[in-house]
Amino acid sequence: MRNIKLTITYDGTDFCGWQKQEKSNAGLNFQRTVQGVIEQALLNIHRKPVNLTGSGRTDSGVHAKGQAANFYSDIDSIPPGRFVHALNSLLPQDVRILDSNEEKKEFHARFSACARLYRYFFICRRPVLPHESRYNLKLPRFPDLETLNAYGRLLLGETDCSVFCGAGDMSKSKNRYIYSSRFFVEGDRLVFEIRANAFLRNMVRSVAGTFLHYEEKNTPPEKLREIIASKNRSLAGPTLPPQGLFLWKVDY
Amino acid sequence: MRNIKLTITYDGTDFCGWQKQEKSNAGLNFQRTVQGVIEQALLNIHRKPVNLTGSGRTDSGVHAKGQAANFYSDIDSIPPGRFVHALNSLLPQDVRILDSNEEKKEFHARFSACARLYRYFFICRRPVLPHESRYNLKLPRFPDLETLNAYGRLLLGETDCSVFCGAGDMSKSKNRYIYSSRFFVEGDRLVFEIRANAFLRNMVRSVAGTFLHYEEKNTPPEKLREIIASKNRSLAGPTLPPQGLFLWKVDY
Repeated sequence: MRNIKLTITYDGTDFCGWQKQEKSNAGLNFQRTVQGVIEQALLNIHRKPVNLTGSGRTDSGVHAKGQAANFYSDIDSIPPGRFVHALNSLLPQDVRILDSNEEKKEFHARFSACARLYRYFFICRRPVLPHESRYNLKLPRFPDLETLNAYGRLLLGETDCSVFCGAGDMSKSKNRYIYSSRFFVEGDRLVFEIRANAFLRNMVRSVAGTFLHYEEKNTPPEKLREIIASKNRSLAGPTLPPQGLFLWKVDY
Repeated sequence: MRNIKLTITYDGTDFCGWQKQEKSNAGLNFQRTVQGVIEQALLNIHRKPVNLTGSGRTDSGVHAKGQAANFYSDIDSIPPGRFVHALNSLLPQDVRILDSNEEKKEFHARFSACARLYRYFFICRRPVLPHESRYNLKLPRFPDLETLNAYGRLLLGETDCSVFCGAGDMSKSKNRYIYSSRFFVEGDRLVFEIRANAFLRNMVRSVAGTFLHYEEKNTPPEKLREIIASKNRSLAGPTLPPQGLFLWKVDY
């Protein structure tokens, strides 16, 4: 059995997120997920069910530029790098395998990952063009980057992120180690980039929504520090829609 | 009455082309067209039907970066440039108005146009990524540009384009004046660009499909000259799918 790691890109628009849904009692399974369609392709290749482990879930509608996953294969006739072509020929166009390689037996896409990087793209003060609308979120105004970046610095290090945690998150500890959190301009788009050891459910969308909400009210960073420390979810701003958010890279 | 010219971009994927479809006998009209959705927005603004004249039809699935159209408005309270915002606030996200300005009374988006420019985008020898798949056509190999450009030069000037004419074209003359026709590389994509006074139905997709078909067979340009001169539609190559094709610009 070889342990194969995949690097995966997808357009999340038409997926109910990464994670395969359990079948309903009636045996029906209408929810299209990224894990589900790749496992279906792996089943076609292996002629038996193959379990695919992702680095983590992405929410419904969230995209990936560089999601990572691994599976065990007993087909020795396919060189590890050839799974790119073998899978792409079976997958729908909104998922593409970018790379495949063999890892050590103990490699685990979720537990071996040391950091995840997300990027959120915003278009401010101009119409969002048709080809951009799946991949960018429209902001009616251009926010103050200095304030947003002052908020971002509050998160650095080990932080209790309860205030940014969506309903249904099962993690025991809400502490996450945030390596970086910054807003910057790239071309004519605004980008929010955040890198952490791991994320809570809806966390990136909640952090961005909360920062923009309080920035608009000219809230000083000291006040935001108190809000984060309160761990009171009701003080968070809106959870932003998934368009524009990409799981950009997983580091091992 | 003011004559307002619009510059329009759209993602053609979810449209049955530009032109509004006649209602069926049953009064039903399920076909979503670009002209149809813009006329609906104009109806909402004017509270009566307003006819929108496009520079020409685009096929189902074909995109536009710079389609042009005009309509007559009796609402003097809206400055000409403000129709951009007024319409965009009513239109679905896959159509955006880029510009609006007042023209002379005699301006006609179709008859006043002196040239149309189309661009066709191809991705060769690498996977088409999810966000590219609506806007690019995949080619399994990289064709020989010298041969394709030799074919392209055969079209220059006034040319009988019958061989490239799709079924159902109603034009009396199949002669078109081709100003330019060339293949080139832009970034890592192959582009076919063609500019003419006007185009026959499906013509750009048929020209590109025919050129690539004969280039693959190493057909010399002299042979292709004979094929074009034959006016025999059955000698044309395949009409390529609409993904990747853009009405890029209309000149007046």
